[in-house]
Order: sequence, then C-alpha cells, then structure tokens
Amino acid sequence: MTIETVILAAGQGTRMRSRLPKVLQPIAGKAMVEYVIDTANTISQYVYLVVGHQADAVKSHLSDTSVRFVLQEQQLGTGHALAQALPELKEESVALVLYGDVPFVQPETVQQLTTLAIQQDTLCLLTTYPEDPNGYGRIIRNDQHQVIAIVEHKDATTEQLQIREVNSGILAVPVKYLKTWLPALSNQNSQQEYYLTDIVAMAVAANLEIATVHPQYLEETLGVNDRLQQATLERWYQKQLAKQLMSAGVSCADPDRVDIRGQVIAGQDVFIDVNNVFEGDVNMGDGVRIGPNCHIRNAIIGDNVEIKANSVIEDAEIGADSTIGPFARIRPDTRLAPGVHIGNFVEIKKSNVSSGSKINHLTYIGDADIGSGVNIGAGTITCNYDGVNKFRTTIADGVFVGSNSTLVAPVQLNDKSFIAAGSVITQATEAGKLTIARSRQQTIDNWKRPTKNTGKRK
Amino acid sequence: MTIETVILAAGQGTRMRSRLPKVLQPIAGKAMVEYVIDTANTISQYVYLVVGHQADAVKSHLSDTSVRFVLQEQQLGTGHALAQALPELKEESVALVLYGDVPFVQPETVQQLTTLAIQQDTLCLLTTYPEDPNGYGRIIRNDQHQVIAIVEHKDATTEQLQIREVNSGILAVPVKYLKTWLPALSNQNSQQEYYLTDIVAMAVAANLEIATVHPQYLEETLGVNDRLQQATLERWYQKQLAKQLMSAGVSCADPDRVDIRGQVIAGQDVFIDVNNVFEGDVNMGDGVRIGPNCHIRNAIIGDNVEIKANSVIEDAEIGADSTIGPFARIRPDTRLAPGVHIGNFVEIKKSNVSSGSKINHLTYIGDADIGSGVNIGAGTITCNYDGVNKFRTTIADGVFVGSNSTLVAPVQLNDKSFIAAGSVITQATEAGKLTIARSRQQTIDNWKRPTKNTGKRK
Amino acid sequence: MTIETVILAAGQGTRMRSRLPKVLQPIAGKAMVEYVIDTANTISQYVYLVVGHQADAVKSHLSDTSVRFVLQEQQLGTGHALAQALPELKEESVALVLYGDVPFVQPETVQQLTTLAIQQDTLCLLTTYPEDPNGYGRIIRNDQHQVIAIVEHKDATTEQLQIREVNSGILAVPVKYLKTWLPALSNQNSQQEYYLTDIVAMAVAANLEIATVHPQYLEETLGVNDRLQQATLERWYQKQLAKQLMSAGVSCADPDRVDIRGQVIAGQDVFIDVNNVFEGDVNMGDGVRIGPNCHIRNAIIGDNVEIKANSVIEDAEIGADSTIGPFARIRPDTRLAPGVHIGNFVEIKKSNVSSGSKINHLTYIGDADIGSGVNIGAGTITCNYDGVNKFRTTIADGVFVGSNSTLVAPVQLNDKSFIAAGSVITQATEAGKLTIARSRQQTIDNWKRPTKNTGKRK
Repeated sequence: MTIETVILAAGQGTRMRSRLPKVLQPIAGKAMVEYVIDTANTISQYVYLVVGHQADAVKSHLSDTSVRFVLQEQQLGTGHALAQALPELKEESVALVLYGDVPFVQPETVQQLTTLAIQQDTLCLLTTYPEDPNGYGRIIRNDQHQVIAIVEHKDATTEQLQIREVNSGILAVPVKYLKTWLPALSNQNSQQEYYLTDIVAMAVAANLEIATVHPQYLEETLGVNDRLQQATLERWYQKQLAKQLMSAGVSCADPDRVDIRGQVIAGQDVFIDVNNVFEGDVNMGDGVRIGPNCHIRNAIIGDNVEIKANSVIEDAEIGADSTIGPFARIRPDTRLAPGVHIGNFVEIKKSNVSSGSKINHLTYIGDADIGSGVNIGAGTITCNYDGVNKFRTTIADGVFVGSNSTLVAPVQLNDKSFIAAGSVITQATEAGKLTIARSRQQTIDNWKRPTKNTGKRK
Repeated sequence: MTIETVILAAGQGTRMRSRLPKVLQPIAGKAMVEYVIDTANTISQYVYLVVGHQADAVKSHLSDTSVRFVLQEQQLGTGHALAQALPELKEESVALVLYGDVPFVQPETVQQLTTLAIQQDTLCLLTTYPEDPNGYGRIIRNDQHQVIAIVEHKDATTEQLQIREVNSGILAVPVKYLKTWLPALSNQNSQQEYYLTDIVAMAVAANLEIATVHPQYLEETLGVNDRLQQATLERWYQKQLAKQLMSAGVSCADPDRVDIRGQVIAGQDVFIDVNNVFEGDVNMGDGVRIGPNCHIRNAIIGDNVEIKANSVIEDAEIGADSTIGPFARIRPDTRLAPGVHIGNFVEIKKSNVSSGSKINHLTYIGDADIGSGVNIGAGTITCNYDGVNKFRTTIADGVFVGSNSTLVAPVQLNDKSFIAAGSVITQATEAGKLTIARSRQQTIDNWKRPTKNTGKRK
Repeated sequence: MTIETVILAAGQGTRMRSRLPKVLQPIAGKAMVEYVIDTANTISQYVYLVVGHQADAVKSHLSDTSVRFVLQEQQLGTGHALAQALPELKEESVALVLYGDVPFVQPETVQQLTTLAIQQDTLCLLTTYPEDPNGYGRIIRNDQHQVIAIVEHKDATTEQLQIREVNSGILAVPVKYLKTWLPALSNQNSQQEYYLTDIVAMAVAANLEIATVHPQYLEETLGVNDRLQQATLERWYQKQLAKQLMSAGVSCADPDRVDIRGQVIAGQDVFIDVNNVFEGDVNMGDGVRIGPNCHIRNAIIGDNVEIKANSVIEDAEIGADSTIGPFARIRPDTRLAPGVHIGNFVEIKKSNVSSGSKINHLTYIGDADIGSGVNIGAGTITCNYDGVNKFRTTIADGVFVGSNSTLVAPVQLNDKSFIAAGSVITQATEAGKLTIARSRQQTIDNWKRPTKNTGKRK
C-alpha cells in the first residue's frame, strides 16, 4: 500500500528567538526537518511538507530534495495544516503525519506505525510514557485497554492527570478516513484552532479500534521549541553517535565530549581523546589516535596516524603513519603522503607533501608540491601571493630548507639542494648544491645600548 | 519597614584547604560572599558582614562595597555571630540572616522571606526538601502544620528522620525579637556553641506562629564547605547562565560546556561551540559564531564575526564581519575594524587594524597602526621593543608586506608601498614603490653536504 | 594465613572489537588488569594470572611484574579457568578470585573478603545491589538470611527476579575446599562450560555458612565487555581522581572535565581550569594555575606558575613564578628556571632557560642554553639541525636577540651582546656589542605593481 508522509513545518518557533525558521535550526550540523525527511523517505512514496512561516527559506533550503511543498497560509492548528495537504493524498494511501520540529523519530518506529495502520485499517497513534507527563495530552483507555480519547492536560481530571501514557502527535491513518474527518474538524475551542487530535474522537465514533505504538527511545517524540530543547536533543543524538562509534571498536575517552556533525567512519582501535569536534565526512583508518581539542572537517586519515592535541584539519588527506601537531593547521586541498611529520604552529594549504618529509615548526606552506625526504626548517615561509596572484613552490626530493628561509614563488628547489638558513630564495636552486642568500655578520664597535626614553611615548 | 541584612562570614573553612578565606573563594570568577551581598543589596537598607577568620583579607577584598563590618573575635556559633551585629540593628527593623558561604539565595526568595516576616510580624524560615535530608535539622510541625521545633539530625527520632523538610539556616525576623532572644541563647550543648536555631523554640514559646518560605531552586540553600561543593555550585550556576543565554536566542552546542565568569551579552543567532570560557564583560553582536576551545575575556565582538577554534582574545574589540583564528591571539588594547581577517598563529597587541586588512599567518603585530586594505605576509614581525623602549609601527592603506619581513619600529610604511619578502625595514618606505632589503642569491659550488658526526655530541 | 590471588584473564573480549587483548585495554592510561594486580598485591603473597586468548601479549605486557602465569588453553568457563591454577595453590592458603576485566575492586574490599573467609573458614562472596539487576545471578537467601544458592537470571522465577542482591563473581575461599570442589564441577549446561558459581551449591551441601561482603562502590564490581563499559568506568575513575585532588585543596573548574592518566600531585590553592589532560607524573607546587585545554605530561611545575590556555608540556621542569602560554609547546628535556616567560606560538626543546628570561612570541628554541635576563625577540629560530647533526646554541646572560633572527648552531652569543633584528648569526658575538647581519634597505623606482594573471593558473 502506498504510504504518503505529511510533515507539518509551518510554525514560527518564536521561542527560538532566531531569524532562521525553526525547522531549519540545526542539530549536529543538519536542519531538524532534514532528519524527518530522511526518516519519511525510508518508507514513503511521497513526502509533503506543509510550510507557512518563512516558507520561502524552508523551500529554498530543501530545493534539492524530492519533497513536495504545500502552503498553509494561515497557521490555524495542526488539523488545518494537515488539511492543506489533503487534496494531494490518494484515497487508497495511508498517511503518516510527522513534525518538522520532532527530528528523531526512527525508521523502525514509523515502519511499525504505518504497518499497523495498514493491517488493522485504523488510526494508529505513537504514544509514550515520559517521566513527567505534565503538559501532554493523556491517552484515555477503557477496561479493555482500548483508546477511547485523548484529553488535553488542561482539561484533564485529577484522576486523568495520573495517567502517564501521552500522545506524541505522530500518527498513521488511512487517507480515506482523513478525507471524511478533516473537513469535519471544528475550531470551537479556546485557541480557535483546528486540532488534529480531534480525529481520535471521530475514530472512536466510527467504531474503529485505535492502535498504538511506542518508540524505542522517548527522545524520538521530543520536539524543539526553544534552544534548550534543541541542545537537549543535540546531546542525546551526539551520545547515540558516540555509542555507535564505540560499538564498532572506537575508544572515546569521554563519550559525552565527542561532537560529530556529519559522518565519521573509523577503523579498529581508533582512540578519540576528549573534546574533539568532527564535521562533514571524516574517515579514519585503523589505529588512528586523535589527541584532545582537535577540530576535524572532511578528512581522510590513514592507518596509525597520530593527530596531536589542539590541531585543526579541513578538507585534507593524511597518509598512513603520519604525525600531525600539536597546534597544526591543515587546510583545504592538502594531501600528505604516508609517514609525513607536521609539527607545531605549522599551516599547510593547497599542497602535496610526499612520503617521509618533515615540516616541524612555525612554517607556512601554501600552494606547494614537496617531494619525499624533504626537511623544511623552522620558520620557513612560502611566499605564494604577490597581492593579486597565487604562485606555486616546487620542492624536489631530498631538499633541505634551512630555518627562517623565505621561498618566493613561483620557484623550484631542485633535487637535494640545500638552502642556507635565513635565505630568501627567488630563483631555482641547483640540485645537490648549497644556495645562500644572506648578509655577512658584522660587529658594530661604537654602538650604544638603547636607554630608557623619558618622553611621552606609551 | 527597614530591612537590615546580617551575613555570617566569620568561619574558617578548614576543609577548603586554602590560604584564601572561605567566603572569598570564587564561583564563576567572583567571591562567594559577593553574590550574597548583591542579593542582600536588592532589598536591604544596611548590610552587615560578620567577619572573624582572616577578617582583614575579607574586609580588604570588600573595601569598595557599602558593607559594614562587624568583628566576631571568637567563633562561638551562629547565634553568637549574629549577636555581634545586634547592637547595630534598629529595634524597628526586620533582620535578614544570610551566610557568606551560601552564595545563590535569590532576590525573589529573600523578598518573600522578609515580606512574610514583616506582614506577619514573626520569625520566617527558609526551608527546603532535599533528596537526601541526612545531616540537616528537620522541621517539626504539629497537626495544624505549624512549625513547633527544629530537631538536629543527630537528636532526631527514627520517625523524625523520615521528615524531608529541613532548615536552611536562612531566616528573617523582626529585630525586636532578636533583642530579647539572642542574649538568652545558651551554649550548654556538646559543641559549647550558641546556636541561632534555638530562637525557633523561643519563638514558639512566645506563641509566635512561625512562617516558612521555600526557594525556587534547592541550590539557593546549598553551602560550600569543600572544593567539591564549590564545584557543584559552580556547575549549577554555569548551567543557569547558559540557560539564560539560550532563552535569549543563543545556541550552545553543549550547555554543560560553556563557562561564563562575568557577564556575556549576546545578540540573536549567536552560536557558541563546545568548551568555551568567557571572562569579564563579553559583548557579542548578532550572528556571531565562536568555535570550540576559545578563551575570551573582556571583548566587544561585532555582528557576524567568526572566531575559529582555539583562539584567545583579551581586552579587544573585533569589528563586524571579521574572521579570527583558528589559533589567533588577540591581546589587550587591540581594535579591529569591520571585515578584518586574522589567521592562524597570529598575535596582535596594542594595535589598530582598519577595515578589510588581512594578517593571515604566523605574525606578530605589536604597537602598530594598520590602515585599510593592507596585506601582511606570513611570518611578518613588528620589532616594537629594543630591550628598554616600545615603539610604534605605522602601516598606511593598501600596503603589501611581503612574507617573513621584519619591521623595525619606529617605522612608517607609506601608502600602497610594497615590501619585498624577507626584507628588514628600518626606514620609512616610499608610497607606491617597492622596497627591498635582502641579499642576492648565490650558489656555492664547492660545498660538501654535512655528514654525520661520530663524536660525543648528543 | 597465606592469601593467593587468582586473576582470570583468559577471555577474548570480542565485543571490544580490538586487536589488543581485553585485559590490556587501558583505563586512565593503564591496562585494566594492572589495577587488579595492584589491588591483589596489597594482600596476596602470590598472584596468578590465568591467561588464554593472546596469552603472549598479556605475558609480555606484564613481564616486569611478579605475577605468575597459568595457561588456560581452551576457555571452558570460569570454573575451568580457576582449576588451571589449582595445582599452584597451597592447601593451607585462602584463594582470592578476581577478574582481569573488573579493574576497580578496592584493597579494602578484598581485605574484608579474605578476612571473613579466613576467620569463618568459609566461602565468602562479594555481592552488590545494582539499580537494575537484569542479567545478573541473584543471591538466594533463606529465612535466616543465609545464602543458599545463586540463581542465574535466565533460570530465575518471577519472584526470584525481584531480588536485587546479585553475585559479582569475586570471592575468597580456603584452597582446601577448592581442591575438592573444582574437580567436581560439571559442564552439563546449555553453554557446556564449567561455572565457578556452582561451588556455592557445593558449599551449601557441605554445610558451610557462606559469608558475604558488599563493596563501598558498585563500580568496584563492574566489568568491561565493550567500549561503552570501558568509557563508563573511565569516567567514574576520573571523577574519583578529581575528587581526591579536590579534597587535598585543588580547585577544578569542572571535575567532570579533568583527565588524569597517571599521577598528579598538587600543592595548595592550585586551580585547574576546564578540559585539561594530565599524563604520567605531574607535580604542581602551591598556587599553580592551569588554563583551559592544556595537555601536560610528566612535568614538575613550581609554585605560582601560570600555564595559560591551550598549552602543551611534556617531560619538562617549569620554575616557580614562570608564565607559560597561551599556545606554548614545551618539549622534553627542557628546564626553565624561576621567573621565565614563554609566550604564544613558542616551542622549546632540549633547552635550559635561566631566570627572568623572556621568549614571548613565535620562536623555536631547540638544543639551547640560555642565560638569565635574556630577551629573545619574536620570530627567532635556533637552527640546531643541518640535516644530519644537532648542534647547541649558547646564549649568555643579558643578551638581546632582535626579532626574526636566525641563530645557526653551533654558535655562542656572549654576555649582553645585542643582535639586530632580522640577522642571521653564524659566529660568536662579542660581549656588549651590537651584531648585525642584514642588507641595506633600497627603494626600487621603476617597479610595477603586480597585476592579475589572466592565464590558466589556479
């Protein structure tokens, strides 16, 4: 049977106090509504998104997806929102109703929900048992344990308030019923809104036996109305991601202090120290060790690489057995071959470094191609920019660049050439020879040591 | 009616194992007793601090406040402590009794407490319901729910130990009663101390109906006797501060990993990544993004600024749309105009940088005034210090400083001058011209590559 | 009486998904089984380790200990494992049975356990009351509260499942009983394994009154079967270590964000900010302040030293009143005298720095001996390496090294010599004199500003 999902995403989210529409607020670096769409896509033939507040921003953000948009011009309640999508839904389908601000309902859960709705040809509700049911609509059951009503918190009797089973709002229902029920909803209530939950009474009146499903995690049904709820789900989701990594053989020094915003794939016996942030796609081989306080985004990291404390890596590839950091910055379009050493206060950008080369201290390598077995001395700078153009530096195998050298690109350092410390190199160096570009040392005899100014300088 | 607050702050705090008096121990960067004084000041005409242990240190720390000090020479119990302040208190006032090591009682709570004491002309106690009441004095009530006694934990019957309502020690009471009761306190007990709680029995004996108030947060009544309790309140307070920020529209990647020691003001849609520490006054505009692991103290940060990972900023102003870091250090007296780029391993101190200028790598800028549209190459150093004096460097608009340049202050780089990479600049440069100060490159033909020493060097 | 400990450590630990044997998995930087051995050594004359899976790796890792190894060739259950050690155990001893993957049983606990086993000449079990007893064997007691059986979870009746007292597996028992019981164990069960717990029934049958002991912490009995359990115990242990530091007078900004992998000794009024990692032996004097995000390994840190944010220190000694960082890297074999200043983006390796010297910015000091009162300008590099050999740099008292200088070792800078900024120094400098090695500044008149390339360069 065809399953069609309607995701309600028209609300304003005033309490977020944000210029961004609520459903686009990120969790783990991804808009909340995208999690819902991903889940919907696992079982639905069609996914409709009911948009309203900042509809254009939402549609623009999701323009690459196959989601179909339905506009709810005025926000008159959940029943009204779903009704906007009703003309699109096929009589013979089952509708799954999800919410753009309830991001973590799981595929298994909606699978169960829709399967029951189909098999039993009835309304199927997702209900939960929160620790504190305050504020939620309670599920009222009769002696046969059949659902007979949902009573809103404010309308509940003292006895009903004791009920811990509550309505999540998520439901699946054959469209044929919706076609009858939704047009019959009334807004005669204190908020003057059309409530979707009122279809429960209609289902009971129609003698349907309402089915219920409970999610594996309570968090699947939690919504985000403010930044604290957003952070709460962020932390829950991060913990789930850390647990997944750990069950695959990764050691996390503290699973509560790993942040993954994207996808991390890791080999066996990877160690992730405290307080690392991963973004985008990060792929780590076996035996990789990531020190504390690193920030890694879109990287391929080979087997047995060690990234030391406080390093930042972005859009780069690190060859096996390399050592990086501490305090290294590897910038986009960098490829390091196996066995490369990058040390402290070193920045590498748009460069290739071949195997076994060392760039150990206080160096900027930009737009360079470096051979194997090269040693770059401390304080070396590639001058890749003349204010308007960028140029490349080429350093052949076995070159030794003395400390504090300045390499003015475009320039080529040929095989095994040796650059004296402190040289400014502007022309190609001869292979195997010493190149020097510096002044002779002089002692100034009649020099007076500086004395303290007594003027008004500050 | 006049409210006079007496803060008991004479204790030693042995379990802190510190040279600092306990009430001066910081939480979120501020001495504990200062929180209590701030709260007292919201409702009191006069605030008295009873000091004893390390009285001079406490008085010195608080010398800028309007607090009046009362010396308790010997620490003979809470009743004795309050009695020292008794001569100062006016017969017609109400006294509020607070504790220097119970920092987080809230203004609303003491407002309620004193209001009840005034309106009902009685002793009013702040009582709580901790999860684990062990060790606390229990509130004994009669069948009419009236307080009739406080029983210390060690004196309580098995039945009384079941009582979960406990005494916090914080109370408000008309001074006229104190004038009678305090002189009547006895130290005939195992500790030979004068206990303030004994006035409860006196109030009952005087047929007063004792009033009670409960705080919103249990933490308002928690005291600090050791470093673990200090840390516990620190974390609770930090979480409150994070929640405040979030309810105002800030996203915190992890509200348990934000530390605020001072005051943070933030605009809309600010994102604070994990593990940041803020100190002093930090003011952030709209759309600011703070990467992980930064340390920011006293800063004004304009709209849409991005501070990347692992940056340190102190006493500085960052113009809108600027990008800072990662690994940037912005030091005191630095003002960056809008649209400035400060990159990795860059230190800026006592300098002004105008709009659109870029200082992207491995640079030290100290005591400099930099115009707009300037590009400072990697490895540039301003030599602002000759061992005794500091001098300024002036760089005009549109200057290009080649990499690894050395700018020996005092020196002026005029409009659009261009400094060749690796130059040492000691004199003013001519506007629009190339200035160069470096040696010609030479190839040494009869050079021998270094060979391994076999001597005793290590 | 002689106590002999048998530690079962033959299991595979499949769920760790690791190449490392489970009992060698680290917690706080130390193999789990080493904690167990340390505890066993506090009371045992002999410690036997039953090894099986990856026995050679385990034996190799522990080759420096006095542990005796017993090989369990096939893993046929806990009873079978202990039986392998039986020939080694003396008839008149008491055996203590521990587990290589249950690292945190405390000396006090095993002391109690063995004492009871000896005094009452019986089997003594360590039992606990976990929140959730699911999966554990329940302790069945009769009306006289005597242990009469252990029932495995899967065999328990509904009533028995209500029992919260569970078996930890840790036990002490006179060897003489084991000599009878172990050979009588049967593997006629669903797993076809020999279960050690079956000796409980034998003890009951022998009319022994089984004794029980409960640990102070539930975590003493928790085992590690996967990375999440490993992390859970890691965090518990880290919190214990933080509490110990705090009770000795250290302030931790967040006790949940301190990682100690080794031993930290700290004086009075030490402040440890958030997110620090300590490894090896770290000894801090009084009044030390460690800023956020530092990584410190094997260091001696004098009184009142301040280590600022994001610094990394390894195998170094920092003199009293020194200031380090932020962004400093102090590498092995570095000794800083009192009152030294090391600033941002500075790396020091294998060097000695005397009192009051300053190395404040963007500097690499390697293999150097620096006198007192020296000022090293920003961007200074010691060239200690010629590609094959390392050489030392010697800088005498009172030397001033101008910024961006290059010091080519071996070289000596004599007393109070002054190096002009941007110099490359290759020979000894004269005491008290200015040494300069740089080119004269020139203005190029007929120079054309670079223009944008329009070619195919990227």
